[in-house]
Amino acid sequence: MLYEINEKAIKLENEGKKIIKLNIGDPDLETPHEIVEAAYGAMKKGKTKYSSAYGEKNLREKLARVHGVSAKNVVITPGSKWGVFATMNLLLKDGGNVVIPTPYWTAYGLSAKAIGAEIRLLKTKMESKWRVDLEAFERLIDKNTRMVILNNPNNPTSKVMDDDRINGIVQIANEKRISVLSDEVYSDISFVETRSILDCEGDHVMVTGFSKMFNMTGWRIGYVVANREFIDRIAKLNQITFSNVPVFIQEAALKALEMHDELTKEIKSEYQKRANVACETLAKSGLEFTKPDAPFYVFPRRRGLDSERFALDLLDKGVAVAPGSSFGDYREHFRISLTAPRNDIATALDRICEAIG
Amino acid sequence: MLYEINEKAIKLENEGKKIIKLNIGDPDLETPHEIVEAAYGAMKKGKTKYSSAYGEKNLREKLARVHGVSAKNVVITPGSKWGVFATMNLLLKDGGNVVIPTPYWTAYGLSAKAIGAEIRLLKTKMESKWRVDLEAFERLIDKNTRMVILNNPNNPTSKVMDDDRINGIVQIANEKRISVLSDEVYSDISFVETRSILDCEGDHVMVTGFSKMFNMTGWRIGYVVANREFIDRIAKLNQITFSNVPVFIQEAALKALEMHDELTKEIKSEYQKRANVACETLAKSGLEFTKPDAPFYVFPRRRGLDSERFALDLLDKGVAVAPGSSFGDYREHFRISLTAPRNDIATALDRICEAIG
Repeated sequence: MLYEINEKAIKLENEGKKIIKLNIGDPDLETPHEIVEAAYGAMKKGKTKYSSAYGEKNLREKLARVHGVSAKNVVITPGSKWGVFATMNLLLKDGGNVVIPTPYWTAYGLSAKAIGAEIRLLKTKMESKWRVDLEAFERLIDKNTRMVILNNPNNPTSKVMDDDRINGIVQIANEKRISVLSDEVYSDISFVETRSILDCEGDHVMVTGFSKMFNMTGWRIGYVVANREFIDRIAKLNQITFSNVPVFIQEAALKALEMHDELTKEIKSEYQKRANVACETLAKSGLEFTKPDAPFYVFPRRRGLDSERFALDLLDKGVAVAPGSSFGDYREHFRISLTAPRNDIATALDRICEAIG
Repeated sequence: MLYEINEKAIKLENEGKKIIKLNIGDPDLETPHEIVEAAYGAMKKGKTKYSSAYGEKNLREKLARVHGVSAKNVVITPGSKWGVFATMNLLLKDGGNVVIPTPYWTAYGLSAKAIGAEIRLLKTKMESKWRVDLEAFERLIDKNTRMVILNNPNNPTSKVMDDDRINGIVQIANEKRISVLSDEVYSDISFVETRSILDCEGDHVMVTGFSKMFNMTGWRIGYVVANREFIDRIAKLNQITFSNVPVFIQEAALKALEMHDELTKEIKSEYQKRANVACETLAKSGLEFTKPDAPFYVFPRRRGLDSERFALDLLDKGVAVAPGSSFGDYREHFRISLTAPRNDIATALDRICEAIG
């Protein structure tokens, strides 16, 4: 449903309608021009050829230094989404199941389905501040469980897991010998400290990307950090599918890393303001929600809401949001992505509150 | 072995060695600067966001006009390779086998293996000018056969199939209700006329890309033409794996299409000259080969040759070629990619002839 709404929003835009798109996590903020210039410079230098399926040496080395690993533990992918798909494909294609705490990012479920893997959902609730129940997690694991997906900060709740909870999950995963796939795509711009899987015990997989950190969604570049053998297997899959991320895009990413501190600070500050604006309006309208710990989302609830119907009707009012059902069993919720200028967010929130009555 | 040699060649280059890389089909010719400027212009206009998993409307419409189909029959992919992988994945993931004439492009076999599909090789020989035996093709098909892959012009032989042979294959495929996946990535720069699967009877799949036609290998952009339902399925796979090809790359491709006639004429003429140079030297050295009908390859044979050993040893002499074993049961052959300036090709051919004794 999430993707259907997005394709419909694009269609309406192509027909000339103005849609405030709060349905996907695509920042309105532009990619910084220094990054654009780095890509252009690389193109002009002829960096437009096939290259390594692992990614460029200089970028891998730089990322290795950031994460305190070897360059051999890093592979460049077309977005973090590819990292998720590739990891699931490699770990699950011969059977086995995956535990996914909900609410969860649509792509995890769709990928698992495309691979033919069994999904075991581990429900968390707003009432418990979206905390994972460790005992429930342990009960879901059986001899066919291969992995658990953590998404920290979480999409769609923008909640950050506390350290104890992560440690608890990792301890169970290690005992049961299952892999943690940790999607940390929002961690560098989180409003609060987040714990990386790379700082935990055990042999796990971290995926992340440049999209959210650097306003580079449409560039399609991310990376995976894992043990060397696993990185080799992903590179082999890269080689037979898309070959390599364009080198000029990797050069742009290298430039982005140079600007990391300055840029993430700016992004954090802007989204904190947007989150405050949104929370104020939502609170007034009587919607239930938890305050986001990170960009980009708020995931409010109205008892009795059919969010699919609501999202479709809202599209005709020029606002796109994502129905809660796209993230698991959350029909009464919907996700607002704060990826628009503050005045657009204010307009959209007014229309949302009006529509919800 | 093909990719191992490529990664080794890149490693040697990173160590400062000069390698004449005739091992992969990556043209030395630069991407025309108009195409680079089109990408840059699009980036500066902010075309750096998520977009449709089908590809941009204007590009799909333009390609639809080129092929005489509807835009709904076109999906944009990160290279033709993705089109091949996606098609094989969708047609073969639930079991079934694929017939592939050999010699064949390495990626077909690796993709089939990654998907877990059975491969049925249909051997063609230099002695028969690499012609497919229609009766042998028919005998290979059983009730589990889902598809046959045509690669016309062929990699690694650079031979073009005659129309009768294509019609014969398509007729058998239609009778047996199997899909033809036609990889036509070299057809627009072929020295001779080639017949597209889109001009044949039946419901088949055409994949191609901008890499070879426009010296855009590292940009990773191609497309698939098929029936609408199949295009929808590929777009769904795109959505859960890499999201979309960067829009600025799609804008570059649109520019490339404007330059199509002029550019393909230039490329054809240059590769025809290179092919002539290569054929002359190879003929003198007593190697057996067929003359290429298209860019980029020559696929010579020396009786008794162990081409894997030969390719590895040759790398130490600063020349990379691809062993014949990477393309099927062709250990005595090796593939020379004429994707280097003519004087480099001449130097490399001298070293090859010297090494082969």
